[in-house]
Amino acid sequence: MRSHILGRIELDQDRLKQDLDYLATVPTVEEEYNEFSNGFWKNIPLYNATGGSEDRLYRDLDGAAAQPTGHAAHVPYLNEIITTVYNVDRLQMARTRNLKNAIVIPHRDFVELDREVDLYFRTFMVLEDSPLAFHSDDDTVIHMRPGEIWFLDAAAVHSAVNFSDFSRQSLCVDLAFDGDFDEKEAFADATVYAPGGTPDIPHRKPFTAEHRERILSLANVIERENFRDVLFLLAKLHFTYDVHPADTYDWLIGISKRAGDDKMVEKAEQIKGFAIGARELGERFSLTTW
Amino acid sequence: MRSHILGRIELDQDRLKQDLDYLATVPTVEEEYNEFSNGFWKNIPLYNATGGSEDRLYRDLDGAAAQPTGHAAHVPYLNEIITTVYNVDRLQMARTRNLKNAIVIPHRDFVELDREVDLYFRTFMVLEDSPLAFHSDDDTVIHMRPGEIWFLDAAAVHSAVNFSDFSRQSLCVDLAFDGDFDEKEAFADATVYAPGGTPDIPHRKPFTAEHRERILSLANVIERENFRDVLFLLAKLHFTYDVHPADTYDWLIGISKRAGDDKMVEKAEQIKGFAIGARELGERFSLTTW
Repeated sequence: MRSHILGRIELDQDRLKQDLDYLATVPTVEEEYNEFSNGFWKNIPLYNATGGSEDRLYRDLDGAAAQPTGHAAHVPYLNEIITTVYNVDRLQMARTRNLKNAIVIPHRDFVELDREVDLYFRTFMVLEDSPLAFHSDDDTVIHMRPGEIWFLDAAAVHSAVNFSDFSRQSLCVDLAFDGDFDEKEAFADATVYAPGGTPDIPHRKPFTAEHRERILSLANVIERENFRDVLFLLAKLHFTYDVHPADTYDWLIGISKRAGDDKMVEKAEQIKGFAIGARELGERFSLTTW
Repeated sequence: MRSHILGRIELDQDRLKQDLDYLATVPTVEEEYNEFSNGFWKNIPLYNATGGSEDRLYRDLDGAAAQPTGHAAHVPYLNEIITTVYNVDRLQMARTRNLKNAIVIPHRDFVELDREVDLYFRTFMVLEDSPLAFHSDDDTVIHMRPGEIWFLDAAAVHSAVNFSDFSRQSLCVDLAFDGDFDEKEAFADATVYAPGGTPDIPHRKPFTAEHRERILSLANVIERENFRDVLFLLAKLHFTYDVHPADTYDWLIGISKRAGDDKMVEKAEQIKGFAIGARELGERFSLTTW
């Protein structure tokens, strides 16, 4: 994987708690990208293109400054972190993200945007320890620890899950550059940049041909009405078995073929293209319309 | 089934649309009973025990009057329906409920409350036609049509689903009585009470022993991490196959036994008891803590 630890900050638990308490009171809304998620996924924009507290769509700012939303003033500690730790000149979007009993299925980001994907620089910091919450990036699964600032390679096939009800609030700060850059330029506070930390990489069970065969036996039960459920079930497997997240889609295609439903095969191939191939800005996808 | 059509009103589409537009702007929050649902389930209280706009917990009023919430004034047409069609003296709670790409798993209501279940009288009216949205009640699946006022036998094993993204906004008016009553007492407007309407009962495919065996083959793929997903997948089957909703739980128990995981068997038996057996007021249940 290309994702890696950029540095680490010591979180002030008392100040953090006040911000977390505010975030918990913000109602959940339907997400811009809710094709990708299942369960409780709550994104709260703190800085974005418009300053709108409900504007959750990531888009290129083209040199304009990111605007604080109405939420930013209610999370003074996180606001301080954003504006003192990170290089706000490069800031595109800052938001808190929480997952509970939920998965964001394997996908690639930025494919619908204009820049070379390598000019987008997504950082991610977990604010609370949630032992059953994981990220994946290509061949690796990560358990992020609070205070670790990660470069998240959102242009790779990646996914996130929280198998539990335990809150996993986090701060996602998106930066973008116009040309070649050094990743230390992501930070205003140069003392924070200390790459090379050893990540917590959970052990995954071996994935065998026999297990693959068991998975393909889902052809026995897949139907159009549960197609989406099967996808989300498959998407979780790579977090506990040593297999690539993109295999999710190949299993779904294989299961659909065994089930002998051409429409299902077509939709499985479409969702693969949409999630990890190319898609247009604002393009939506239905897993349930046939 | 004991659920049946109580009557029908002609909905004023222009006035309704304004109310629906308001309801669409109300953010979704975590639901009191979110163990039961998956996907988009949005309940907005219009009348309840406290008048609190965020108070979604159904409880006995013990003779006190239900209070309008802050939302009631924003839906003047629905408010007029509630206060002129129904017997507000018996009103316990009135709320709008919407499901999209979501299921509420088979369960029984009122089991945690004090009265004889037959003294609770839940009415339900769909406000929009959503062709892939269904209710179930014991042995029957129903496609409700807009304007039909249903007695919903919430004390029976029942479930609801919307297989599509199409909005299925509805008005759920809960009444309660202190002793024997005639169901026409549910209405202030006696002209609305016109039982005996023929419901739209969709055809379901036969459920065979061979299909049951295929379902039990989910033992090949069930794991603690996808236990909840398997439950929700199973819960959908009775909407398209002619089988009782409670079988959902017996399949889950059977699959868990075949998988040979005693903890899973225990949890499957617990969720069965919680959903369709007895539970305490405010009792919660985790499908993901092991």
